[in-house]
Amino acid sequence: MASKIPTTMTAIEITQPGGPLVLKPGKRGVPEAGPNELLVQVHAAGVNRPDVLQRQGHYPPPPGASDIPGLEIAGDVVAVGSAVTRFRPGDRVTALVADGGYAQYCTVHETTALPIPAGYGFIEAAALPETFFTVWHNVFERGGLKSGETFLVHGGTSGIGTTAIQLASAFGAYVITTAGSDDKCEACLKLGADRAVNYRTHDFVDAVKEATGGKGVNLTLDMVGGDYTERNYDAAAVDGRIVQIAHLNGAKATVDVSKIMIKRLTHTGSTLRARPVEFKAGIARELELKVWPLLVQRRVAPVIDMVYPFHEAWRAHERMEEGKHVGKIVLDVS
Amino acid sequence: MASKIPTTMTAIEITQPGGPLVLKPGKRGVPEAGPNELLVQVHAAGVNRPDVLQRQGHYPPPPGASDIPGLEIAGDVVAVGSAVTRFRPGDRVTALVADGGYAQYCTVHETTALPIPAGYGFIEAAALPETFFTVWHNVFERGGLKSGETFLVHGGTSGIGTTAIQLASAFGAYVITTAGSDDKCEACLKLGADRAVNYRTHDFVDAVKEATGGKGVNLTLDMVGGDYTERNYDAAAVDGRIVQIAHLNGAKATVDVSKIMIKRLTHTGSTLRARPVEFKAGIARELELKVWPLLVQRRVAPVIDMVYPFHEAWRAHERMEEGKHVGKIVLDVS
Repeated sequence: MASKIPTTMTAIEITQPGGPLVLKPGKRGVPEAGPNELLVQVHAAGVNRPDVLQRQGHYPPPPGASDIPGLEIAGDVVAVGSAVTRFRPGDRVTALVADGGYAQYCTVHETTALPIPAGYGFIEAAALPETFFTVWHNVFERGGLKSGETFLVHGGTSGIGTTAIQLASAFGAYVITTAGSDDKCEACLKLGADRAVNYRTHDFVDAVKEATGGKGVNLTLDMVGGDYTERNYDAAAVDGRIVQIAHLNGAKATVDVSKIMIKRLTHTGSTLRARPVEFKAGIARELELKVWPLLVQRRVAPVIDMVYPFHEAWRAHERMEEGKHVGKIVLDVS
Repeated sequence: MASKIPTTMTAIEITQPGGPLVLKPGKRGVPEAGPNELLVQVHAAGVNRPDVLQRQGHYPPPPGASDIPGLEIAGDVVAVGSAVTRFRPGDRVTALVADGGYAQYCTVHETTALPIPAGYGFIEAAALPETFFTVWHNVFERGGLKSGETFLVHGGTSGIGTTAIQLASAFGAYVITTAGSDDKCEACLKLGADRAVNYRTHDFVDAVKEATGGKGVNLTLDMVGGDYTERNYDAAAVDGRIVQIAHLNGAKATVDVSKIMIKRLTHTGSTLRARPVEFKAGIARELELKVWPLLVQRRVAPVIDMVYPFHEAWRAHERMEEGKHVGKIVLDVS
């Protein structure tokens, strides 16, 4: 297969910081796989919020990363580095990548690649890595969610939200979520949420208190920040944990630290992109062991909102910025 | 000895919410030991910040607690409840109590009493429970401080501060502390702090960065709150933990939650008083095993600032509110 690899490829470039239309196809050299890397011919690439921030100029790629956006892909392995042990050309993989996913070819560290689950196509597979790695680490590892606990996730219809609802539910938590319309709430309930709160018409703190018999939730996954921060403290149970993974309403928050003391709260958080490959590899192993079987059984599955042609990546960003999506937005790179 | 127990005793009462002078001796009935309790003839009682807040009317005692202030005592066991197994009349004990320490007699759950360490008098012994229980739980259990880590404690000359400096140092941490004068900084260094920062003349974030080669500290014990909250985030290392145990500068804080994400911080906290007796008993066992031997060897020891006669408890509160003390303020109840 190696003979078919071209020297140049099409990639979606951020021609300058700005709106969706700054995303344009351009010609790039096909990258070469390092010793531990796979070269993957990309068939589908997931679109994520950090890609939008990067396009706007607010989220520069980590040092050493390509300027091409894109954090997750699915495709065929077409070449492997000299030290690669697990995968071979012809294997179908999905992978978390630090950059460069919006391209026809992308290099991937073999430890952050996973076999595409049986029965999944490239589109669905490309919708897995970013949200599943993020949710697994922040909800189960960092947040320590256990069966029988109560769990609150904001933005229930986002890629993160749809994944968190399904995984938390599959692992035995009582799941409460927030969303911005009754239709979105309905979608969350279908995914397995036990309670969905329309935050435009109801106060989520009141709703959480009511749903938990006044106790509050054991764990909250928050990507809103801003004024949600203190309200997350109010919605938390004694010994509650709050894991921060983004701050769509702004990073600045006014909080009452006595609530942290009195309820013995834990407010923590993380970002995934800048973590070393060994860390991501650890999550990959856990996912393959504990979550891939659930995917194969379709007990959990990625929720696909829309698929856009690769060359029209700008439309995918426009869709994400409109905020009307339910689940993942994916680029078809075939 | 039981024959000597009177039916009434003197206790220091909060005659109304207000300044130190509202503290006045009054007559009360001697309490009776419940099945698992000791009746202790109090010889010394420690004075703590929550006592001041309680006197001011800002910190009501937990449900079921006496209105007499006082969270720690040392004295002789004079009677024991029917189910008590460990202690006998005549034993010398120090104990954490939920209330009622400012009195000639006080009941104590036997699991939160500890034998007075060899070589210690009642005054020193009464200075142990509140700060040692608080520091042990928040620094070593909740905060997870490990040998070789860097540790920041604010208010280095407070009862909590002097205890935290000594224990963190004894268990192998690099200790940075803040205090409000050069003299206080000197006192902290003598107690084992590796670095003491006069917060009136230096920015503690800069000092921490300098002392840690730019890395920041692994663990911060904070009782300041207010504008220190965000500065604690700035002074923290990647994966740093911040444990909140009070908020002398106010509970309201403005923070940037992106710092929690980017550094993967953990902001947590607790209050000791309201915890169940089983929880306090667990700390007592750990202290006896791991810290009492260090006390006997004088590798750590309580720092006594001033001792006041029992009837002049108001002077002890005045001293604490002036903020000039170094170490513990104790009432001599003999």
